[in-house]
Amino acid sequence: MELLESAAAMQQWATAQRAGGQRIGFVPTMGFLHPGHASLMALLRPQVDRLVVSVYVNPLQFGPGEDLDRYPRDPEGDAALCRDQGVDALFRPPDLYPDGFSTSVSVHGLTEVLCGATRPGHFEGVATVCARLFGLTQCQLAAFGDKDFQQLAVLRRMVRDLALPLEIVGAPLVRDADGVALSSRNKYLSESERGRARSLHRALFGMQQRAAAGERDVAALLAHGRSLLDADRVDYLQIVGAEDLQPLTGLDPAVPARALGAAFYGATRLIDNVAL
Amino acid sequence: MELLESAAAMQQWATAQRAGGQRIGFVPTMGFLHPGHASLMALLRPQVDRLVVSVYVNPLQFGPGEDLDRYPRDPEGDAALCRDQGVDALFRPPDLYPDGFSTSVSVHGLTEVLCGATRPGHFEGVATVCARLFGLTQCQLAAFGDKDFQQLAVLRRMVRDLALPLEIVGAPLVRDADGVALSSRNKYLSESERGRARSLHRALFGMQQRAAAGERDVAALLAHGRSLLDADRVDYLQIVGAEDLQPLTGLDPAVPARALGAAFYGATRLIDNVAL
Repeated sequence: MELLESAAAMQQWATAQRAGGQRIGFVPTMGFLHPGHASLMALLRPQVDRLVVSVYVNPLQFGPGEDLDRYPRDPEGDAALCRDQGVDALFRPPDLYPDGFSTSVSVHGLTEVLCGATRPGHFEGVATVCARLFGLTQCQLAAFGDKDFQQLAVLRRMVRDLALPLEIVGAPLVRDADGVALSSRNKYLSESERGRARSLHRALFGMQQRAAAGERDVAALLAHGRSLLDADRVDYLQIVGAEDLQPLTGLDPAVPARALGAAFYGATRLIDNVAL
Repeated sequence: MELLESAAAMQQWATAQRAGGQRIGFVPTMGFLHPGHASLMALLRPQVDRLVVSVYVNPLQFGPGEDLDRYPRDPEGDAALCRDQGVDALFRPPDLYPDGFSTSVSVHGLTEVLCGATRPGHFEGVATVCARLFGLTQCQLAAFGDKDFQQLAVLRRMVRDLALPLEIVGAPLVRDADGVALSSRNKYLSESERGRARSLHRALFGMQQRAAAGERDVAALLAHGRSLLDADRVDYLQIVGAEDLQPLTGLDPAVPARALGAAFYGATRLIDNVAL
């Protein structure tokens, strides 16, 4: 596995691979890798000639007071996991942006709702870093987890709108044995917070079961979810159209819907979602 | 020469060319082509295997009250000029953006000055359409004229910042016999407006001569330029750093400088610029 520690090195490597006709797959991450990330690598590995993983904690997608400075890091563990997954190149630059960096990419409509409502600028940071990473890696395939469902929708839209020559692949959310969605931020949780954090997926699965049993009224579904959710603070619990992320008032079998939640356990903000 | 009349057709063509190892050059235009455009095609032709020209009047880069609805068009003339220049594919879609298009690309700092100050949103429209066109054409080389000097700076910055896998080539401004910079908008000028429009390049060349003769004081240079400029309204006449487009107070032989002007003759806004 090659270690690429600058944007220039990444670009050179990618250009050489593409000139040789290699098909490049890419998994962008912020490191502290877990089996959710590994599942993205395993998904792409058989579909590409060269697999690249990036580890970069992107300041652009953190707001003031968020956890940029204490975001967990594990360079050795990350490299070992990548090696195990047959990754060809690990891109981990100390800095990603050139001097005088001044370009931003915005995706309107999809980014003002859900996480975007309480994390202004977050998705602009995500879209911008991904546009740059897609450019640097010249990937034809990039994988993202369903866990960050809104992020996936935003990036699909960006790739379509800017006609970027790559395909975005979504991958199923990976859960721990207790049902909690895998996240690097789970590391922040105390034991008692971790216990209560289970209520997030329980609320979502509770809503999913009621919907499967025929409940179509969104207010009733949300009330049920709220009753199951034991958090220090609920950022949101919503049911939206899976494509446009706009709130629904009722379920319609013809319109794919998604239930999403974000909640705080202590100072830690977790997100989760399920298809309805 | 192939005519490609949809984004999907463009994308397919480009994908096939790239799969065959062809190097693609691209000249984006808004049509009503003139020898300035032809010079861009001639510049790229020997450097690429396949040459693509787009003709699309991009609504995103026009403000309210600007000339979107009356922008001159000449589909037959455009096609003939492209054929003469050995263009392989002419991309002229009736619509360029997909339903629900919601992505925008901004380049900060370079876009608030000069033309950006009086045309808010213009450069966001330019950056966004070019990002999409670069994606659709998968070009490795794209040519733009020095006439739109600020546009060239903005696009170079976007390509660098997003690490788009292509090179931007700038080409010298082309002038008519009377010195007026070639522009599709010159068609709007009455005979007397055209006569006075010569004062724009005269003002700029006058400043260039004074600078060459040793004048370093920007205020003095601008006063000289203003004295030569006979326009119905001057939008701006400025001397800026050629890289960052920020106003200078004095010339420094170590810092490339550019004099730029925008002025109205009747209802027609013309721009021009020279190196100092």
